[in-house]
Amino acid sequence: MLEQQLMEYIAAVPDLDRAAMAQAARRQAELAKPPGSLGKLEEYAVRLAGLTGQVCPTADVCRVAVFAADNGVVAEGVSITPPGVTLRQSAQMTRRKTGMSAMADFFGDSVVVYDVGIAGRTPPAVVDCKLRHGTGNIAVEPAVTRREAIEAVGVGLEAARQAKRDGVQALGIGEMGIGNTTTSAAVLAALTGRAAFEVTGRGAGLTDAAFAKKKEVVARALARHKPEKTDVLDVLCKVGGLDIAAMCGAYIGCAGERIAAVADGYISAVAALCAVRLCPRVQGALFLSHASCEPGYAVAAQELGQEPCLALNMRLGEGSGCVLLFRVLQAACAAMSGMATFAQAAIDEGYLAPLRGADADGVTP
Amino acid sequence: MLEQQLMEYIAAVPDLDRAAMAQAARRQAELAKPPGSLGKLEEYAVRLAGLTGQVCPTADVCRVAVFAADNGVVAEGVSITPPGVTLRQSAQMTRRKTGMSAMADFFGDSVVVYDVGIAGRTPPAVVDCKLRHGTGNIAVEPAVTRREAIEAVGVGLEAARQAKRDGVQALGIGEMGIGNTTTSAAVLAALTGRAAFEVTGRGAGLTDAAFAKKKEVVARALARHKPEKTDVLDVLCKVGGLDIAAMCGAYIGCAGERIAAVADGYISAVAALCAVRLCPRVQGALFLSHASCEPGYAVAAQELGQEPCLALNMRLGEGSGCVLLFRVLQAACAAMSGMATFAQAAIDEGYLAPLRGADADGVTP
Repeated sequence: MLEQQLMEYIAAVPDLDRAAMAQAARRQAELAKPPGSLGKLEEYAVRLAGLTGQVCPTADVCRVAVFAADNGVVAEGVSITPPGVTLRQSAQMTRRKTGMSAMADFFGDSVVVYDVGIAGRTPPAVVDCKLRHGTGNIAVEPAVTRREAIEAVGVGLEAARQAKRDGVQALGIGEMGIGNTTTSAAVLAALTGRAAFEVTGRGAGLTDAAFAKKKEVVARALARHKPEKTDVLDVLCKVGGLDIAAMCGAYIGCAGERIAAVADGYISAVAALCAVRLCPRVQGALFLSHASCEPGYAVAAQELGQEPCLALNMRLGEGSGCVLLFRVLQAACAAMSGMATFAQAAIDEGYLAPLRGADADGVTP
Repeated sequence: MLEQQLMEYIAAVPDLDRAAMAQAARRQAELAKPPGSLGKLEEYAVRLAGLTGQVCPTADVCRVAVFAADNGVVAEGVSITPPGVTLRQSAQMTRRKTGMSAMADFFGDSVVVYDVGIAGRTPPAVVDCKLRHGTGNIAVEPAVTRREAIEAVGVGLEAARQAKRDGVQALGIGEMGIGNTTTSAAVLAALTGRAAFEVTGRGAGLTDAAFAKKKEVVARALARHKPEKTDVLDVLCKVGGLDIAAMCGAYIGCAGERIAAVADGYISAVAALCAVRLCPRVQGALFLSHASCEPGYAVAAQELGQEPCLALNMRLGEGSGCVLLFRVLQAACAAMSGMATFAQAAIDEGYLAPLRGADADGVTP
């Protein structure tokens, strides 16, 4: 994908169907319940109506797309997990042996893993979209070229298109990339102007010394590359990663294809912010799932103007929170389509009248 | 049920299976993931192991038990919803036409509605356990007699036993009872010594004047009846309701029958607190679902020593939050049983070695 093509795609991303949303909001008000009592489920149902154009939408077909890539910054000792785990876990996901994929299996969600830049050969059953074997170490060099970042965005975009072709209604956007809480922190700091220490966390569990080093590495990468805040592609290629870039593309693709785009934790939320900055209409398609433990997550969520609805203290990544949010979306749709309206309930009153009579007649036990 | 029988049942409620929990915790540590990275899902899986005695438990069969009763306190104008709605919505639940039941239908959960004290005849398909046609108005008289409160607890207890016989693994404990946020506030204040204004909320949406009146009614009921803080049955019969009493019994029954007991919102959490005060071992079986908007919810959750994991701004009741928590429990079980352990992952490494070789040999694109 060329930058020009990406910009054309972004320009063509449609707005939500405002008429369907208005109808959906009217229906919510007509459902036999105290107004607003379904809280976020109402908002979700209305937004799904806006995405699908259906007043009573469904979200039965769900998928997690996982973008896997290695990050050269691991050379700095910013992760306790060896980089080979990116390859191993990507393979394990396709066998439903990881946390997210085991959950997805239970609920019948599909899982598609894309190799955007794993260091090593693409594992069997992983979709080979490899652009290179891991990125550069952002502490000393740019992660990738601008061209490579755009190609990675294109991989994500195509994943969303494929999801649409496969009938997917909600796409969870997950990742597998050892070192990517470090690159996410650098990207988030670059996009928001926050200091490295504000957005950098312990990831999968660093010692105090390694945590201090990680913050220093993020600060160093930002100081060295001076990514341009308003140019997301500049940020992604200098201090990001192929995983984050592809995820960014997946969000944009979901908005373009009118599929619900479900964010997971920290890395996924940072990628969503990249997408919203490139294409503000992504916001309408975006659903946050769980609140990550990483301190930068709250910063990203605030920038995205949404609050997550799950508080599970999870920090697994992979798209694990998405699998739970799919259920919330399904519940929102089930309430929207299954509940009686006040008008229907009034008709149903007919058969209840004799029951009330017992009480009205003063028959008490 | 007699008080003596209830106390005997409570005395016989078993502790969690500590050996199974220790084994489950060990398995969690062996799963190929950063330690603790599944957050609350790990805690839930370990507690389900303690309930079931299975290291890899399941929560496939879920049910919402709804306890429906009218509350005499509605005569004080504490609710904007007419009391006849208790009867109507109870009937609608059995037809899967309400919020909770529409969601439960989608996910395949069973719903059983118990009439503990609806004013009117028991609707078709609702289980008739009616003890009287609504309670007394707690502003001027006790809700029920102590004997009636105990019988209502017995109804809930039997509902849990029935669930066990039906193979249910997680029981959501819901309610339908116009006026029951008022009685819940009175019960919670009585149990905790909190002032009425601290635990009384707007329920389904009161005006300022009606809200002030509601707080005054709760304070008046407490001042009039002086329920004994340490005697839950005294609190329930003086300022509670048949719905809350039955729910209290259902929690105790779940602990007794070793089924997961899932709380919904405010009323359900207050009933859970009644149960834990009567029978501290209920705590092991208890799972909170969503944070209710009612201000008293946080007080109840704090007293229960747990935090809910869903933040959906819901205030529908019925057991609607339970339906979502069932999915969280299922996800917790799926991860526990489906994920590879580090030992398994090491074996799987065998077939990945050639893939890594490509990288180790310095083959880069």
